[in-house]
Amino acid sequence: MAGSSFGNLFRITTWGESHGKALGVVIDGCPAGLPLEAQDIQIFLDRRKPGKTAISTPRKEADEVEILSGVFEGKTTGTPISLLIPNTSQKSSDYSEIASYYRPGHADYTFDKKFGFRDYRGGGRSSARETAGRVAAGAIASKLLKELGITVMAYTKSIGPVHIDMSHFEKDAILSTATCMPDKTADEKASAYLKECMMNKDSSGGVVECVVTGMPAGIGDPVFDKLDANLSKAIMSIGAVKAVEIGDGFAVSTAKGSENNDAFTMHDQKVIKKTNHAGGVLGGISDGADIILRAHFKPTPSIFQKQETVNKSGENVEVEIKGRHDPVVVPRAVVVVECMTALTVLDACMANMSARLEYLTDFYHPSN
Amino acid sequence: MAGSSFGNLFRITTWGESHGKALGVVIDGCPAGLPLEAQDIQIFLDRRKPGKTAISTPRKEADEVEILSGVFEGKTTGTPISLLIPNTSQKSSDYSEIASYYRPGHADYTFDKKFGFRDYRGGGRSSARETAGRVAAGAIASKLLKELGITVMAYTKSIGPVHIDMSHFEKDAILSTATCMPDKTADEKASAYLKECMMNKDSSGGVVECVVTGMPAGIGDPVFDKLDANLSKAIMSIGAVKAVEIGDGFAVSTAKGSENNDAFTMHDQKVIKKTNHAGGVLGGISDGADIILRAHFKPTPSIFQKQETVNKSGENVEVEIKGRHDPVVVPRAVVVVECMTALTVLDACMANMSARLEYLTDFYHPSN
Amino acid sequence: MAGSSFGNLFRITTWGESHGKALGVVIDGCPAGLPLEAQDIQIFLDRRKPGKTAISTPRKEADEVEILSGVFEGKTTGTPISLLIPNTSQKSSDYSEIASYYRPGHADYTFDKKFGFRDYRGGGRSSARETAGRVAAGAIASKLLKELGITVMAYTKSIGPVHIDMSHFEKDAILSTATCMPDKTADEKASAYLKECMMNKDSSGGVVECVVTGMPAGIGDPVFDKLDANLSKAIMSIGAVKAVEIGDGFAVSTAKGSENNDAFTMHDQKVIKKTNHAGGVLGGISDGADIILRAHFKPTPSIFQKQETVNKSGENVEVEIKGRHDPVVVPRAVVVVECMTALTVLDACMANMSARLEYLTDFYHPSN
Amino acid sequence: MAGSSFGNLFRITTWGESHGKALGVVIDGCPAGLPLEAQDIQIFLDRRKPGKTAISTPRKEADEVEILSGVFEGKTTGTPISLLIPNTSQKSSDYSEIASYYRPGHADYTFDKKFGFRDYRGGGRSSARETAGRVAAGAIASKLLKELGITVMAYTKSIGPVHIDMSHFEKDAILSTATCMPDKTADEKASAYLKECMMNKDSSGGVVECVVTGMPAGIGDPVFDKLDANLSKAIMSIGAVKAVEIGDGFAVSTAKGSENNDAFTMHDQKVIKKTNHAGGVLGGISDGADIILRAHFKPTPSIFQKQETVNKSGENVEVEIKGRHDPVVVPRAVVVVECMTALTVLDACMANMSARLEYLTDFYHPSN
Repeated sequence: MAGSSFGNLFRITTWGESHGKALGVVIDGCPAGLPLEAQDIQIFLDRRKPGKTAISTPRKEADEVEILSGVFEGKTTGTPISLLIPNTSQKSSDYSEIASYYRPGHADYTFDKKFGFRDYRGGGRSSARETAGRVAAGAIASKLLKELGITVMAYTKSIGPVHIDMSHFEKDAILSTATCMPDKTADEKASAYLKECMMNKDSSGGVVECVVTGMPAGIGDPVFDKLDANLSKAIMSIGAVKAVEIGDGFAVSTAKGSENNDAFTMHDQKVIKKTNHAGGVLGGISDGADIILRAHFKPTPSIFQKQETVNKSGENVEVEIKGRHDPVVVPRAVVVVECMTALTVLDACMANMSARLEYLTDFYHPSN
Repeated sequence: MAGSSFGNLFRITTWGESHGKALGVVIDGCPAGLPLEAQDIQIFLDRRKPGKTAISTPRKEADEVEILSGVFEGKTTGTPISLLIPNTSQKSSDYSEIASYYRPGHADYTFDKKFGFRDYRGGGRSSARETAGRVAAGAIASKLLKELGITVMAYTKSIGPVHIDMSHFEKDAILSTATCMPDKTADEKASAYLKECMMNKDSSGGVVECVVTGMPAGIGDPVFDKLDANLSKAIMSIGAVKAVEIGDGFAVSTAKGSENNDAFTMHDQKVIKKTNHAGGVLGGISDGADIILRAHFKPTPSIFQKQETVNKSGENVEVEIKGRHDPVVVPRAVVVVECMTALTVLDACMANMSARLEYLTDFYHPSN
Repeated sequence: MAGSSFGNLFRITTWGESHGKALGVVIDGCPAGLPLEAQDIQIFLDRRKPGKTAISTPRKEADEVEILSGVFEGKTTGTPISLLIPNTSQKSSDYSEIASYYRPGHADYTFDKKFGFRDYRGGGRSSARETAGRVAAGAIASKLLKELGITVMAYTKSIGPVHIDMSHFEKDAILSTATCMPDKTADEKASAYLKECMMNKDSSGGVVECVVTGMPAGIGDPVFDKLDANLSKAIMSIGAVKAVEIGDGFAVSTAKGSENNDAFTMHDQKVIKKTNHAGGVLGGISDGADIILRAHFKPTPSIFQKQETVNKSGENVEVEIKGRHDPVVVPRAVVVVECMTALTVLDACMANMSARLEYLTDFYHPSN
Repeated sequence: MAGSSFGNLFRITTWGESHGKALGVVIDGCPAGLPLEAQDIQIFLDRRKPGKTAISTPRKEADEVEILSGVFEGKTTGTPISLLIPNTSQKSSDYSEIASYYRPGHADYTFDKKFGFRDYRGGGRSSARETAGRVAAGAIASKLLKELGITVMAYTKSIGPVHIDMSHFEKDAILSTATCMPDKTADEKASAYLKECMMNKDSSGGVVECVVTGMPAGIGDPVFDKLDANLSKAIMSIGAVKAVEIGDGFAVSTAKGSENNDAFTMHDQKVIKKTNHAGGVLGGISDGADIILRAHFKPTPSIFQKQETVNKSGENVEVEIKGRHDPVVVPRAVVVVECMTALTVLDACMANMSARLEYLTDFYHPSN
């Protein structure tokens, strides 16, 4: 209820501040029997680590995950999995100044209004470090989905004015480029653009796209818990996201029905759609086509230009933010989008298992 | 869990199909003591009624709400409020044909995949009539918010290529124009565009914008239950919405930090923001500025052109949908967006009341 | 959250006051495909009707249920089932006096303290009529459980000092005796005892026992959502219940481990227990034996003797309650206990379907 | 949903197995501003430590709690509080034998049926060590309640046949006696009884009573989330509890209405009750009197006598359990009952803050 939990049947609860002792997540409802070791999670966490490239902050965060419970002899036991990521490199001294004023574009002011005060070290709970817990849990969700034949893949779609060209799509480039773009040419252009931003003490927004393949039809619920509604919440809950699209997304508002409708057709004795404007969801329920969504991220609010703001004494002041900040949040957010999508889809797959009486009778009376 | 409930403290559960006996909603957690009569709800329901204008279906739906519980001597009692809206004008014969095939852009196929069969009369539970329950509950949420000094107002922002001009904004026009546009010139152009769509047996998408004024700072939670995340789910759960924006929305992905950050400043001894690119939410918590969001609706999928699809026997077929269908869903969806926003904001306001120890001690020890 | 909903996957929301227009329940999450007609529900509702015997109030309540949604062509569709029971026989004039004071043993005072005022007609929401919604929903849960081979049966175990003799157990007597005792001799004694209570303007407490047969092992969760914990909440949420026992119940506190432990043994190549002191639950999870629970009901608080209390002006007063009141709540509560048990067990059975990875892979990849 | 979370507004999630690396709890929704340090929690954890007396197991568990998040400069921040208790003294070798068979009275068999296998070391998640997380969270709830003037106190009421004499009640004895009885004479008798049990390789059940003082009237909800229903779940979710009573509890089933009703009367211009048979709850809502409940614990199932059971190969076997086991669970469970009660009451107090419109308008418009 206080908002640090997500999901119903596969339910995660994250905790931790940027400069506390550690961050972590508890996963309740993970099915028993999944082979799991720390390395399965670590490879996901490594994708959101800072300090890897010229366009990211030189901060070092070890982000090494430890499994504290819920796994026995290499397999999940069905009981809560507690994951812990110690905070190792934080120096609170870096942040002492920002205790006294409200950084534009950050949650400093709103946290004070909500809670009366705030842990100002590195943004506290509002730091992007909070997503480490999401990614750790999402790694497990992704591994489970893979067992069901479902794959989730996110990548950078655009940074500022630079868009990828889908005809150049190289999957491997997602992990190898500094921008997480699956198009090396676009990656170069975007990197150049970001360097220019950095020179100008400025930052850039961008777009992450995510595709779910192997999705069975029939997943999701008709009204408030539509699959796309839950995905929308999942994605919008990532700090810095200001818009979410499913399928054709905002283009639908200028489209006509004759363009937007996806025709059904038979293929290999299966019902498929000839196009996928809907992005894999009709009426809140998966239609068997790939699920496609996009998240629009705002530019990093921590810029090094002089900015106007207010201090805690209620005086107008000019400030210059210091420290180590990425000029764009998108590359490190790619894995976060992927993980939030995986968590949402898995939860819906689990909920779907009791949608029909025949599923229950098959389960409890397998011989009938 | 099966997705027909929304909200935590102010929790609604809707039920009903397009052509069943009735639709309705149960509201649990409405504070006691709110003056309430059917007419408070009816004026909201009347805004989503069809058949009022040349650009909407000539169907007649009485949509008269009855309060069955939770109100005593004109005031809410704190116990569940059950609202019932009888279905009066549905003729199931109109829809018998669509039982046999999957309408493109509709949930026919996905319902069959989820549940094994479907109530095909008028789309059953996936019909836009489902939103009647949301609107009835939202009317109560809006009335409560008004008591707190908070107002929610939605209007049509665009239909197809026709956008309103904010400099022509007339609030009264929202209720008086056929398109629910607050700009009479745009309304005329959009109406003409829609008539053209109808002549071409086609339909159009559009955008609804919603503004919350009087919002206190500090409402919402930091992580998964960010105010904008919950709003995003609320809006995306409305059938036909394919994208949601908060504040500058999509535009942030091509913006720079120096453009997107809102400077804080003092005004009348209060902290305000000089601009509102953020749309009233920072870090998931309201910042005291107006909350601004936009919903992108796809074109009505029921068009009268010949379309390709598949029938229940697994054969490719060509179909022509008949019946009475609006060429655009946006005007009738305006009040739905407004109501889903009100429900979300009210729930967050109620949750916020226990955010600080001092709130609890003030409440339980008023004399201290 | 405001407490009118119960269950997670099979979730019910009840509404309605004793003297409002109607009572009802919405069931969300009922699996699709269950044959269902009003009569399936009516037979359960008829079991809690008053006015059938000499030891119950002569009030007449028609309690005829109407299915408003969620059923199509005789089967549940997987969408919410809305059930409505009109209030037909209530005369508010009967109750006008009790508006002015707080009846001992009733919720008049506590409702006023919580909500600031109350619907005083017949107890409003705190009336036992509130259980009609539970029973209507429980009838559906029971029908579903029967499809899974699980049967729930409740009966009166004792009334005042009169206990049934289990060696006289006749199942049919549950429905045919006035007390719902499965022992006709005990029924006669209990009836005589109740008549004496009535003559003395007094009332009696009693015990309902409930047995679940056909229960698979492995249902329930280990920590807070133990099957017996959820059953305990379910039963204690019935008005007038003041104690709940599972298996040997209270007796365990004076027992020794050597007496209380149930030995496991092989039977027909299956693991069974030689005894069932545990009442079918070990560590919160069903063990395959019958689930056995007991609910202790307090005496009807509405007695016709002179009682001391306080009126709304804060004066000590003596009152004599009038009206039509059963001398014991137990016989009509039997079906309520049965229904709350069925709802709890079914919800746990549905949740269990995703407890293991192999269940998910079997479900989503049936060919593997 | 998988059952390791409890509460709505003050929500806890526990994790950890008996012999894993650590146990812990995440508390989400703790109001900001509460002074909190590890010692506040440690004093509660020390009350459930084993090895303190002659009647408890000589195992040593350090159970030192560490606060990992949610506290800044000595105060809670409103964000999740993560508490960690390392497991230091567990030797898995002690338990290797029990991997092969199902201990009577334990959850070995049911865990295998639910999850397909189990962490058999010390009972894994079904160990009483699981309650450490509950107690750590309950310590915080208790501290918050104290700020509201509400105190929760539990003590041992009986062990086997030995009951305390309420006329000998000494509060200090709860913490000083080996049995946690507030009556030193009874403590001596109970200790003698337990030593006899130990000599006979047997164990004993017992009863814990809990009293909540300072409770405001009006807390709790009318239907499923009755305060006593939620308390009942809270208590029954503690391993080894088989029965729960509120107020007069099971005695009500043989009582008459004239005995059981509590008369209201005026006292110091306040409404009070002359008696408290109801145990402080009427219609699910607190009535201002002390809340009184009792939990009946079964005898420790680990006894050293020869017992019959079944091994994993499906053979009947005789076993003798070894290791270190308390002859009664009650003394160490006293603080668990106290903590589960505190968690439940606090959550209800927080939920109550939005029960009336006037509460909302007072909160959001303090000037009116």
